[in-house]
Amino acid sequence: MAEKFVSERNLKFLLHDVFDVSSLTQFPYYEEHNKEIFDMVLETALKMGKDLLKPYLQEMDKNPPEYVDGQVKVHPAIKPFLKECGEGGWIGSNAPMESGGQQLPLTIAFACRFIFAAANYSAMVFPMLTDGAAHLIEAFGSEELKETYIPKMYAGQWQGTMALTEPQAGSSVGDITTVAEPTDEGYYKIRGQKIFISASDHDAVENVVHLMLARIKEAPPGIKGISLFVVPKYRPEQNGERVFNDVNIAGLYHKLGYRGSPITQMSMGENDDCRGWLVGEPNKGLAGMFQMMNEQRIDVGLGASGIASAAYYTSLEYAKERAQGRPLSAKDPAQPQVPLIEHPDVKRMLLYQRAIVEGSLGLLFQCARYADLEIGLSGEEKENYSLLLDLLTPVAKSYPAEMCILSVSQAIQVLGGYGYCDEFPVEQYFRDVRIHPIHEGTTGIQGQDLLGRKVRIKDGKAFTLFVEEVQKTIASANDIAELKPFGEALEKALETLQEVTKHLLSLAENESPEVFLADATLYLEFFGIISVAWQWLHQGLFIQKGLKDNPSGAEADFLHGKFYALRFFFAYELPRITGLAQRLTNSDGLTVEIKPDYFSD
Amino acid sequence: MAEKFVSERNLKFLLHDVFDVSSLTQFPYYEEHNKEIFDMVLETALKMGKDLLKPYLQEMDKNPPEYVDGQVKVHPAIKPFLKECGEGGWIGSNAPMESGGQQLPLTIAFACRFIFAAANYSAMVFPMLTDGAAHLIEAFGSEELKETYIPKMYAGQWQGTMALTEPQAGSSVGDITTVAEPTDEGYYKIRGQKIFISASDHDAVENVVHLMLARIKEAPPGIKGISLFVVPKYRPEQNGERVFNDVNIAGLYHKLGYRGSPITQMSMGENDDCRGWLVGEPNKGLAGMFQMMNEQRIDVGLGASGIASAAYYTSLEYAKERAQGRPLSAKDPAQPQVPLIEHPDVKRMLLYQRAIVEGSLGLLFQCARYADLEIGLSGEEKENYSLLLDLLTPVAKSYPAEMCILSVSQAIQVLGGYGYCDEFPVEQYFRDVRIHPIHEGTTGIQGQDLLGRKVRIKDGKAFTLFVEEVQKTIASANDIAELKPFGEALEKALETLQEVTKHLLSLAENESPEVFLADATLYLEFFGIISVAWQWLHQGLFIQKGLKDNPSGAEADFLHGKFYALRFFFAYELPRITGLAQRLTNSDGLTVEIKPDYFSD
Repeated sequence: MAEKFVSERNLKFLLHDVFDVSSLTQFPYYEEHNKEIFDMVLETALKMGKDLLKPYLQEMDKNPPEYVDGQVKVHPAIKPFLKECGEGGWIGSNAPMESGGQQLPLTIAFACRFIFAAANYSAMVFPMLTDGAAHLIEAFGSEELKETYIPKMYAGQWQGTMALTEPQAGSSVGDITTVAEPTDEGYYKIRGQKIFISASDHDAVENVVHLMLARIKEAPPGIKGISLFVVPKYRPEQNGERVFNDVNIAGLYHKLGYRGSPITQMSMGENDDCRGWLVGEPNKGLAGMFQMMNEQRIDVGLGASGIASAAYYTSLEYAKERAQGRPLSAKDPAQPQVPLIEHPDVKRMLLYQRAIVEGSLGLLFQCARYADLEIGLSGEEKENYSLLLDLLTPVAKSYPAEMCILSVSQAIQVLGGYGYCDEFPVEQYFRDVRIHPIHEGTTGIQGQDLLGRKVRIKDGKAFTLFVEEVQKTIASANDIAELKPFGEALEKALETLQEVTKHLLSLAENESPEVFLADATLYLEFFGIISVAWQWLHQGLFIQKGLKDNPSGAEADFLHGKFYALRFFFAYELPRITGLAQRLTNSDGLTVEIKPDYFSD
Repeated sequence: MAEKFVSERNLKFLLHDVFDVSSLTQFPYYEEHNKEIFDMVLETALKMGKDLLKPYLQEMDKNPPEYVDGQVKVHPAIKPFLKECGEGGWIGSNAPMESGGQQLPLTIAFACRFIFAAANYSAMVFPMLTDGAAHLIEAFGSEELKETYIPKMYAGQWQGTMALTEPQAGSSVGDITTVAEPTDEGYYKIRGQKIFISASDHDAVENVVHLMLARIKEAPPGIKGISLFVVPKYRPEQNGERVFNDVNIAGLYHKLGYRGSPITQMSMGENDDCRGWLVGEPNKGLAGMFQMMNEQRIDVGLGASGIASAAYYTSLEYAKERAQGRPLSAKDPAQPQVPLIEHPDVKRMLLYQRAIVEGSLGLLFQCARYADLEIGLSGEEKENYSLLLDLLTPVAKSYPAEMCILSVSQAIQVLGGYGYCDEFPVEQYFRDVRIHPIHEGTTGIQGQDLLGRKVRIKDGKAFTLFVEEVQKTIASANDIAELKPFGEALEKALETLQEVTKHLLSLAENESPEVFLADATLYLEFFGIISVAWQWLHQGLFIQKGLKDNPSGAEADFLHGKFYALRFFFAYELPRITGLAQRLTNSDGLTVEIKPDYFSD
């Protein structure tokens, strides 16, 4: 099996050359760090991926978690990995030092999550969820909650989860019915059911801490009556003991992929003894949860890109090793066959994957950069970066989530029949990666978030800032002869984006919300392609800078290869916006109009 | 689980209204049949699908074939299904009556295969392969071979296979090395290995008959030295006994999907006692095999469309039953949630599936129609239909193969988290359907076949005939007000097709074959979209005809629904050709140029 699952060279190129992560150390928050530390973190993550995660990829898939005697049992590789995560400071790596974190830039944290996801997505979800849950307690919880929970969570001893979904409330989170009944003891009594909760019970930790949405008795209906609670599996008592908190696992889901991670149905308060502690203010739970959710959404993008990266390197190794067929212009059957990678159609499938994976990664690091600058800066600058991050979050979630399925599918195609069989992990990657358009808000939900909310916030300020960001990159590219044609192509695409957006916003004025948002999913795709083209052009500035130094050997191959991937994206992917723009400006309301009865046969 | 896996109404609409299958009975070959017989065959196939196939869909997936004591054991449902296929005349249903077939139009045979594939793709492969293998013996075999093998095969007692692929020869079939050594006894001694052979051994039949490609000792290298043999698992002796023919199963593949069907590695002649009988002339085996292969390629399209049809109806039923969320313009949380099918984005995902499935099916029946006319007619007409069928075969294989993956993925998306779990079969459909771009020639191979060969045969005559066929449909559509806009859109698309094709053929003159064919896969996609738009317009003629009769109730819903699917295809899918045409006319040779070394990091 292919050893390689990510390109260290490319990660360093993105972190140092393109996004200049060391420049963040000018801000007090990051001043304790430097480039050497960043590289050390990265190299350690790579080593962990290689030693602790990748070797168990297929084994974890073939031996999914089991529910035995009221306890979920996960693969034995999870425990040492979580221990290492706890001891090495990997959980809460970007949290403030004062609460036990490492205060690393999110850019670095994202790079590490990408590495872990590429090595073994199911495994990386465990610490990532704990990280997000702890972050939420840190942001909104009382001092007592922080002291009780965060240290154990950062140490990898207690698992964190995000418990939103209920049987009757999937994408419609406002419809949750789990009840929290106030008591005089400072806690609430919780009763209800949750479904599809990741890492919600397992034997690699001592305890599980659910960050759970529930409705305080007699709260208003809908999203305005939702509160956030800490609901542990075992509640810590004053005397240091832990008492079972009446959080019961009703069953495990059997999934297409992502099988190493247990997803359960839970039932709280079957014996009227489930206690929850309020996090933040009553009825304001959704805003808090969304802070966590936004980071998790970008993690989804990282997860998808990571899996597609691993699939890419598997197919690349195969294409180099497997001899099959002969060049079209030299078909003499007496000559030996050539490696697959000699065939243009195979190179096309490899470039496709590279264009998707490295383009997505650029967009994800761009989001991290905005988040890091938001922390470092203040005033209007801070607010602007925050707006940019808000705008790009649904894009950075969905572009990789959707496109990496196609990317992994191309990896299968490179391997042909072998790609369909389990000797190679590409079939698993194809199953694993399919989760991403579903969890943390479906692609449909992301589209409505982008067009219905983000593009319009503050009178379209986030959108205007985005256009300016892209224009800055185009201006820089126009000074470099090799990039000028791509700068011009992106300029045209940006104009199309503005026209289409203007058209759609005019519908918001004149038509029903249904007609306005009918094709929001397509708008998201359209926006995603242009965003990734922008990121490729952005990378192009540094590719050309590198090539100016006349590199040789592996470094020259790397940069030339990247430039081909850039060219590929502009030649094969960017033209897709033309068809999408055609549809997006033809707002005939077709999908709004059609009656459900017309689907009868 | 959803009961419905195909629309009987739509099948009858296509068979009777659109393709007027009864008109074939004017030809002597089909004169024994009539509409009632066709409907009876169809209804029986639906019943078989419902009773013998669908109930075992998930069970066969969870209990794949096992290799025990030198014998492959398949699910117990296969045996009664094959018995029924044999007794009911389902194998060889379109073969001539004189050789034991039913002499049914291929259009009807295809409709039944589509039904079986939708009910249980893994199961339908068994009789379909036997059918194709028997057909090959019938076309090229000696009288003795015909008498020995065909009756047992049509009876479903012996399994047929197609044994091409070898470890060193996947897509490059000219590189096979299995040896056939002539003897004085009328048979050849076979030695070699085959991989990825479907249904190549199992316990639901008494014998397996491999139609195998091998190289007669000292034959020329490459495809010019390949011959076709019948190589049975047990060879029938004069005395009626059957002797093991030294065809050994080396192992089973574990696959992503399509798990009910055993795919094996085989080794022939380990004890120097494997005998094969030549079919047709020495060194002319590939031409014969390709006759069978072409039909199998269209079967792949049927398989893909069938699976996508079943996924569509599963997601449709779910969308009707599952309440989730509220209309965007009526979000009052005090009101009950509405069924998913009320949301435009969900209707979009349903229409997408319907547009792909019913459009693909139109194209497949169009191919069947050409095949049936080719049999019924003679002279130039016969030749023209044969050319049209040749041209469209790679399209009718690949458009469904590729697009139905996306279609099934949308079915998963309609179900959200449940779509990712095995309570519903959509996750299985997603795994099953992924085989289709791989087997019977990858999509890359089909692209080269279309652009490199089919578009150019007889100085482009097939292509010219195709353009005329599309123009005929456009001309009819232009007489109907409701269809005129779509006729005009297709006319423009057809012009684009001609321009792009002309450009590419000019490359064939002036550039290397590598540059000419670099984007053949994209050309295939481009050609496919236009072909399916044509088929939708073709269906539109009969949709509008039906609507003119002012139908009511279910019939009106059916026709209105179909017209929305037509509109959807033209609004959402046809515009994709613009981006593809942009790429196809920008022949920069990017994927030809890039050096394999540039993929080093």
